[in-house]
Amino acid sequence: MAEKETEISQLGEFGLIKHLTDNIALKNQSSIKGVGDDCAIIKYDNEETLVTTDLLMEGIHFDLTYVPLKHLGYKAAVVNFSDIYAMNGKPQQIVVALGISKRFTVEHIEALYSGIKLACEIYGVDLVGGDTTSSRAGLTISITCIGSASKEKITYRNGAKDSDLICVSGDLGAAYMGLQLLEREKIASAGQADFQPQFQGKEYLIERQLKPEARKDIVAELDKLGIVPTSMIDISDGLSSDILHICQQSNVGCRIYEDRIPIDYQTAIMAEELNMNLVTAALNGGEDYELLFTVPLHMHEQIEKITGIKIIGHITKLELGSALITRDGAEIPLTAQGWNHLS
Amino acid sequence: MAEKETEISQLGEFGLIKHLTDNIALKNQSSIKGVGDDCAIIKYDNEETLVTTDLLMEGIHFDLTYVPLKHLGYKAAVVNFSDIYAMNGKPQQIVVALGISKRFTVEHIEALYSGIKLACEIYGVDLVGGDTTSSRAGLTISITCIGSASKEKITYRNGAKDSDLICVSGDLGAAYMGLQLLEREKIASAGQADFQPQFQGKEYLIERQLKPEARKDIVAELDKLGIVPTSMIDISDGLSSDILHICQQSNVGCRIYEDRIPIDYQTAIMAEELNMNLVTAALNGGEDYELLFTVPLHMHEQIEKITGIKIIGHITKLELGSALITRDGAEIPLTAQGWNHLS
Repeated sequence: MAEKETEISQLGEFGLIKHLTDNIALKNQSSIKGVGDDCAIIKYDNEETLVTTDLLMEGIHFDLTYVPLKHLGYKAAVVNFSDIYAMNGKPQQIVVALGISKRFTVEHIEALYSGIKLACEIYGVDLVGGDTTSSRAGLTISITCIGSASKEKITYRNGAKDSDLICVSGDLGAAYMGLQLLEREKIASAGQADFQPQFQGKEYLIERQLKPEARKDIVAELDKLGIVPTSMIDISDGLSSDILHICQQSNVGCRIYEDRIPIDYQTAIMAEELNMNLVTAALNGGEDYELLFTVPLHMHEQIEKITGIKIIGHITKLELGSALITRDGAEIPLTAQGWNHLS
Repeated sequence: MAEKETEISQLGEFGLIKHLTDNIALKNQSSIKGVGDDCAIIKYDNEETLVTTDLLMEGIHFDLTYVPLKHLGYKAAVVNFSDIYAMNGKPQQIVVALGISKRFTVEHIEALYSGIKLACEIYGVDLVGGDTTSSRAGLTISITCIGSASKEKITYRNGAKDSDLICVSGDLGAAYMGLQLLEREKIASAGQADFQPQFQGKEYLIERQLKPEARKDIVAELDKLGIVPTSMIDISDGLSSDILHICQQSNVGCRIYEDRIPIDYQTAIMAEELNMNLVTAALNGGEDYELLFTVPLHMHEQIEKITGIKIIGHITKLELGSALITRDGAEIPLTAQGWNHLS
């Protein structure tokens, strides 16, 4: 342990919770009562309540060798916000449950919390409760996010219709390439105390992996333009898996055009460097937290005007199946397990 | 693995979730949309929304050597319901996040889910969502429960007033004695294939530890009689810790009378057998999930008529501190860390 590190046992469970949550001021009118009782209390007038939960386990979802705890806290919160935006809602509260093993100090958990609080600050969300407990091994983070949406604006996965346009925000595959890069440098650094990782020119990939953002701006823009998508999902498992969720639940098929998939140049350079197939990374990499949605065909012009949204294909009748159209016009079926034909 | 066991990898994450949640019908009007989209959707009209979360980690909160998975699922759900009742609310929805290591099969998770579903059935709660993921080691269960309460009836920890009566439901210390018994039999059974644990005459203790119930009935009874407690908490950490939560947040002191603490005879017999102090077990054992609440002094007669509720002391001014009055009239300060004077 470095200097100034405090063992959690010095504070105890109640002390740690008090220490971490003492200065939290509630911002939203819907947050009636925060940390400190058996439950948090919230109240949404005239709106529906959205609930989503995510469980992150050390060694499965994150590697603390290269993930700073503050970034981890930020990401853990943001991926939950993303699920609320994917319903066209507004995240308003989170409750945070942590399982903490003996190797973590008070300062570690402070760093994690500072990331969670920063995300809450930026996205206008209140931290209203949680649970803190011991873990036999590793760090466990469980966040439940609660948000609001008016009934008329909620977007489900099951509303896509034949001929709808398929739209995606931002670009895809960068978070996955960031992970490959971090893993490569981790292996290269093994045993070297003064190792300097090679991230020059690849900062965007690292940021997309370590500090993703949820597309609050896209939800706001669609709202401003009066557009309610016919279906929407956030891309966490990868474009291929997630468009199939929409197709399966909407009872439709789809065509995605390879040359339409938005990819950043850093992602392309990294794929070449690692000798990986770029489209596979964009289709199946996951952790993009971009919004994937469908709108009626007649909204074509309206959608094209929105910066940062790209039309990548269209919905078809169910019997046509779900496929990627490659640059040379070949049709390759999309599969939920990942599209492995080019890998 | 025994026969008929199915590896989780055969179904995959999406397959497992579908398998576990396919036949769930929503019971409550407030449950608009359950499992299957980015979020669950709920709606409470004119009522406040209560939110509570609990994280249970294998090796810390449960030992699968003697805890059947179905019981574990039941208990994991019920302890969350208990937090909602402790606010004088009605639990209505849960979301369940599981972290599952490789040693668990589909049948194991089915057993766990069957317990969660049984608890939902009995308490009228809907399972509306969740997350299922891998874990490097052991089982992690994170449940968030959402409930409703009218603003006028919510009971906080901070409303206790000088001279209020302190009331408790059921009896205390039995779950703790059940745990001691299970641990004793675990040690006794080590290495013996045909070991028969000695539980005769101690069934109540085992049940209190493995299959606790939340006091829905007490909340209903108080409502029927038009009684809104001035403060309320559920006893999860032990009477001593939990009355101190009320006292600290209400800025008051208290007197608890040793001879008034309700204790079952099986608990008393077990304490003698193990040569443990009975009152210490009742004060600090925890996991009772009984309701601890305060009411104004003038409700004395009304409260005494309710079966299963006992008046165990009264609230005092802050400067008098919080203490236990022993059978011989001695005053012993209560402490949050547990009252160790008699142990």
